[in-house]
Amino acid sequence: MVFANAGTLGAVPGKRDALVAHLTQRSGVLSEVGCLAYEVGTNDAEPDTVFVIELWRSADAHQESLRMPEVQASIAAARPLLSGEFGGFQFEVAGSPLRD
Amino acid sequence: MVFANAGTLGAVPGKRDALVAHLTQRSGVLSEVGCLAYEVGTNDAEPDTVFVIELWRSADAHQESLRMPEVQASIAAARPLLSGEFGGFQFEVAGSPLRD
Repeated sequence: MVFANAGTLGAVPGKRDALVAHLTQRSGVLSEVGCLAYEVGTNDAEPDTVFVIELWRSADAHQESLRMPEVQASIAAARPLLSGEFGGFQFEVAGSPLRD
Repeated sequence: MVFANAGTLGAVPGKRDALVAHLTQRSGVLSEVGCLAYEVGTNDAEPDTVFVIELWRSADAHQESLRMPEVQASIAAARPLLSGEFGGFQFEVAGSPLRD
């Protein structure tokens, strides 16, 4: 079942755009492990937050990605940009009005 | 710029699955007005909540959809299933690690 993650990542003040640049660096391994979509963005009403929505082939694929050396290295590299505040929600996809 | 909405919709107790069925009814008008993705689902850790993530061609396309008679009728039909609690966040998409 497709797994969705919608998350907010607090950025160190002034580092939001650097965090966006980091998170949008082209990655081949994500789709290999089952990432179907990974959109990163901002909302100027919350200037120290980066927003992501992700779709994965399954919750297991998402967990597997977090164990990959490339992903662990990317998370470590992002750490100086992160305030430590995280939010959002996760769910299993039941369907879409855009398809039968 | 692509616009993203990640939302939580509180359901009247016992009506979550009916709300999911309603929100996943096939709709042709959404993609016509610029809806790129609309995923609906659940998380059994929050049994009275329905989760959605949406991508739209632009924030204007999303606003335009809310003015369409078909969409207004759908919202009216969903009302008896909704508890009135809403949450989530919206953002402008800056990019994705899955594409250049």
